[in-house]
Amino acid sequence: MVNETQQPCSASSSSRSDGSSSGSESSKDNSRCSTPVLDADRHERLREKMRRRQDAGDKWFSLEFFPPRTANAAVNLISRFDRMGAGGPLFIDVTWHPAGDPGSDKETSSMIIANTAVNYCGLETILHMTCCNQTKDDITGHLQKAKRLGLKNIMALRGDPSGEEWEEEVDGFNYAVDLVKHIRNEFDDYFDICVAGYPKGHPEAESYEADLRHLKEKVFAGADFIITQLFFRPETFLKFMKDCQAIGITCPIIPGIFPIQGYHSLRQLVKLSKLEVPQEIKDVIEPIKDNDAAIRNYGVELAVSMCRQLLDSGMVHGLHFYTLNREVATTEVLKRLGIWREDPRRPLPWAVSAHPKRRVEDVRPIFWASRPKSYIYRTQEWDDFPNGRWGNSSSPAFGELKDYYLFYLKSKSPREELLKMWGEELTSEESVFEVFTCYITGEPNRNGYKVTCMPWNDDPLATETNLLKDQLERVNRRGILTINSQPNINGKPSTDPIVGWGPSGGYVFQKAYLEFFTSSEIVTALLKVLKKYELRVNYHIVNVKGQNITNAPDLQPNAVTWGIFPGREIIQPTVVDPVSFLSWKDEAFALWIEQWAKLYEEESPSRMIIQYIHDNYYLVNLVDNDFPLENCLWQVVEDTFELLN
Amino acid sequence: MVNETQQPCSASSSSRSDGSSSGSESSKDNSRCSTPVLDADRHERLREKMRRRQDAGDKWFSLEFFPPRTANAAVNLISRFDRMGAGGPLFIDVTWHPAGDPGSDKETSSMIIANTAVNYCGLETILHMTCCNQTKDDITGHLQKAKRLGLKNIMALRGDPSGEEWEEEVDGFNYAVDLVKHIRNEFDDYFDICVAGYPKGHPEAESYEADLRHLKEKVFAGADFIITQLFFRPETFLKFMKDCQAIGITCPIIPGIFPIQGYHSLRQLVKLSKLEVPQEIKDVIEPIKDNDAAIRNYGVELAVSMCRQLLDSGMVHGLHFYTLNREVATTEVLKRLGIWREDPRRPLPWAVSAHPKRRVEDVRPIFWASRPKSYIYRTQEWDDFPNGRWGNSSSPAFGELKDYYLFYLKSKSPREELLKMWGEELTSEESVFEVFTCYITGEPNRNGYKVTCMPWNDDPLATETNLLKDQLERVNRRGILTINSQPNINGKPSTDPIVGWGPSGGYVFQKAYLEFFTSSEIVTALLKVLKKYELRVNYHIVNVKGQNITNAPDLQPNAVTWGIFPGREIIQPTVVDPVSFLSWKDEAFALWIEQWAKLYEEESPSRMIIQYIHDNYYLVNLVDNDFPLENCLWQVVEDTFELLN
Repeated sequence: MVNETQQPCSASSSSRSDGSSSGSESSKDNSRCSTPVLDADRHERLREKMRRRQDAGDKWFSLEFFPPRTANAAVNLISRFDRMGAGGPLFIDVTWHPAGDPGSDKETSSMIIANTAVNYCGLETILHMTCCNQTKDDITGHLQKAKRLGLKNIMALRGDPSGEEWEEEVDGFNYAVDLVKHIRNEFDDYFDICVAGYPKGHPEAESYEADLRHLKEKVFAGADFIITQLFFRPETFLKFMKDCQAIGITCPIIPGIFPIQGYHSLRQLVKLSKLEVPQEIKDVIEPIKDNDAAIRNYGVELAVSMCRQLLDSGMVHGLHFYTLNREVATTEVLKRLGIWREDPRRPLPWAVSAHPKRRVEDVRPIFWASRPKSYIYRTQEWDDFPNGRWGNSSSPAFGELKDYYLFYLKSKSPREELLKMWGEELTSEESVFEVFTCYITGEPNRNGYKVTCMPWNDDPLATETNLLKDQLERVNRRGILTINSQPNINGKPSTDPIVGWGPSGGYVFQKAYLEFFTSSEIVTALLKVLKKYELRVNYHIVNVKGQNITNAPDLQPNAVTWGIFPGREIIQPTVVDPVSFLSWKDEAFALWIEQWAKLYEEESPSRMIIQYIHDNYYLVNLVDNDFPLENCLWQVVEDTFELLN
Repeated sequence: MVNETQQPCSASSSSRSDGSSSGSESSKDNSRCSTPVLDADRHERLREKMRRRQDAGDKWFSLEFFPPRTANAAVNLISRFDRMGAGGPLFIDVTWHPAGDPGSDKETSSMIIANTAVNYCGLETILHMTCCNQTKDDITGHLQKAKRLGLKNIMALRGDPSGEEWEEEVDGFNYAVDLVKHIRNEFDDYFDICVAGYPKGHPEAESYEADLRHLKEKVFAGADFIITQLFFRPETFLKFMKDCQAIGITCPIIPGIFPIQGYHSLRQLVKLSKLEVPQEIKDVIEPIKDNDAAIRNYGVELAVSMCRQLLDSGMVHGLHFYTLNREVATTEVLKRLGIWREDPRRPLPWAVSAHPKRRVEDVRPIFWASRPKSYIYRTQEWDDFPNGRWGNSSSPAFGELKDYYLFYLKSKSPREELLKMWGEELTSEESVFEVFTCYITGEPNRNGYKVTCMPWNDDPLATETNLLKDQLERVNRRGILTINSQPNINGKPSTDPIVGWGPSGGYVFQKAYLEFFTSSEIVTALLKVLKKYELRVNYHIVNVKGQNITNAPDLQPNAVTWGIFPGREIIQPTVVDPVSFLSWKDEAFALWIEQWAKLYEEESPSRMIIQYIHDNYYLVNLVDNDFPLENCLWQVVEDTFELLN
């Protein structure tokens, strides 16, 4: 949004200006919902969220990113989405780069990055779209694709004309207002539309006043809110806002904040945006221009000070940050302003997707707990969530996960690093046990490297799992290779910092769960031990060929996480479901080969060890149904080891 | 089944004989269910239940009733169904009385009594049907109606020919086997079919052997099991059973047990059935024929002894009792045999209906807790239960409850008794408070009568409510007229004798609930008090005109009873649902008028007092969401009284 061109005064203004809701996607349902509404955020469109936050007097922020150039950079950006998403932005937006094939299916296209943010990172997302030099059909195609992918918000921009001298095209898109009208014509009220505002007036505008009139036109054509170009002094924005209001613009106007992060990025930006840096800023920066840290510190100070003045004015409720895809400066500003969410409240125990189709999703199998993006990918063709109840017999099949290099599932670590963590050379099954043990303990492996990820888990151990660390270490060392577990919880407050989720005032519960790979020898002993626990422990044991041993009644799901909240139905967001376990089994076994074995040469001993495990081990899950008592699963495992001795 | 006529040997036997399941209604689903299967019983057809009980080595019993002559007797019979149903019969059966318009909609017809047993008492029920002197169309009509009403089992009988000398009709139903075939032809495998067996041979049969062949024909034509005519000696039945097996009858054969209950009923029965009473029995009975108690005691002794011998033989798994619509003797025999269910395990906290459409019903609003029959009546047109989740927005409306004298909702007490309990003359609102208080305490009212029922509750206080007795008494005395309440429960075993339900090994929970009528003065104070409890207590307060005050979020149901079971999804069988509360409100207010005010003359002071309450009081419900803490609802009420002082 750095370089947006103004629109001339044309086209009659529409009477629609207040962003009021209508149409099928609008508002939350007035009738009863088929699933409990735990989190109003998931059910509202962006303009309503904004209004609600404003009505409640909450301050909020949003973050702007641009699409990266390489697939590796895209993987990193997605990790950044996850991390910065935890701070609680109201939305993020992804810019549109006409030169980067922005509507394509490339990993680095604007469309796919925005898709990933919505679907896989669960972030409310605005996709930018520029219209000049494009046909109506192109634009309609992009919009249809965006809608199909679950994108609900468009930032309508003109974009840079390609030629030297710009000329209006007959019947084409010449101005952002044309795009706004086109979206409303073709897609009715489906999208929330954002447009750009210029606190100093657009550099190409005849005058500041003329530019304000253009802005009003965009709003009256159907835009829901305005994000401004960056500016350097708070009074610039506040004057602009008053001027907008004076000519009848009543929708939200969000100031665009640019924390200065370096001398060169500032210069480049200034050149592109044709803005002038005030003398008092130049005076500070020029002397320290080679000291990046100093400039960034100054930039943070400046941004904090400006944001405080904006918020204190009472006219500003939200702040929009031009992050330049960087994390540190923006996060620092937000933390100092106190609007970074330090204690992220989870609406459900797992990260929710922001796709409108998944608004009512409130239950998932526990198996994908560490691979939520894979779960979303494999259920993306589902028509509804959670399919009535979880266990609906007409539940559609899980999609195949053939492409293990889908970029949003790609390991953040390159092959060399994985080899350092998981072993350049494996000599026995025990060396595999060691890798699992090091992952659990956080201790360096025999070559001095910490194991920070595993094929089944791209992140370090969850805080909750840390509660089980000692026991997990003990059993992994002996060949019970754990990939998923949770402790039992008997009614902790929903605000508990480690295991809490959902609205406050509730109570959360869990049944103890343990999932692991292990040898057939251990399985034989385990099955004998499980007889003693027949009424208490449910188990599913399966090998890669699908041989399946279970004591679960019929094919019913077992709820293993649930919450009781004021004025709500019971929520049971995690289940052990026998049917989906078989889909998960395929994925869990395949990860041995795809992520681990393939690091090694074919026919190499290392690869053959992993292949052996893949072919011969069993995947086991255990649930202790007696959640109010002490977890018995460790005793089950101890009994098994004892039997083997 | 006392007087059943044999069928001659005719018609080729079908190959179908083993009662194996097929067809759409058969068996439990192999795929996942849309709701958790808590109670296999609800999902099986009768022949499967029988097989499962036999496989498990469980002994069971069933009870035969005949339709009563008067509507009052029907009301009493239904109470008896409820009481004897608690003992756990595998099924009951209702005989078919051609003279009593058995297929009609009369309160006393076989069809309607069976309908009531299935739908309103939740009993697996067999409807008898006789076929002689009826057209195929008549029979098909009866069967269609039975199916529509949710009846799933037919006892196929010939019935008594009407003329002196019986002649075969061409193209009519001449024998029970014709009816069996007709049912299978017209309704495929929808019904489970029972036929009659004669341990001594049918009195009209050429021979015992010929009669056995007729029986085999009925079985091969599609009958699923056999119930026998009564007999007096165990060896009679055991011989009959061996003879049946010898000629290839492999389906269950259930002995019909007739506990002798009086001299005259025995004589009449013997006359009708053309059976001979053995001399050793006559020798005992004749000398004591005028002593009813003595004969009944002897009858119980005799029945217990015979049943023990049958069960000990290892050939008998179930016993069928001819109750003659009486309770004492049969219950006594069953208790002495140890097969009367002393500790009724509830599959859900409320009594389930046995209609096949309602097999998956697992959630209901709490409001009808004391009027389950009314709830079933008002939701009988629903297509499915519980409509996905409870709170589905496409949930159909509740039916009107206009006819307050629907016989299965009729008070068991006649008008005079109600007047004694509720007051021949009311002088003020306080005299109404007194009635409520007496109902709670069980103490006699000022005229010395105990108040054993109320318009909102036809039964004495539930055991569970007794836990709250002291508090309830206190508040009713002061004009908080309670009609429904439950204590909070924080994880009691599902086997708890008072609050337990569902399979063993689980834990049950409740939020405290209180529902009452009260004056607008108290409501005003209550609302002030509730502000202090805003985050903890949800309330709905409504008057007869529908003015509605609530702090419930949106229109979401609040789960107030739930259970956690091994290997199952969470079950939440009771909710406070804001939408259905408004349907309940109409019913709850109407009961003041229909059941109470109308006891008095129009314009009488008593009637005007009730009318005043109806017009001016509010119906209030309160939920304390903090189920692990001490119930705060009493404190809310105390605070309200304090504020008023």
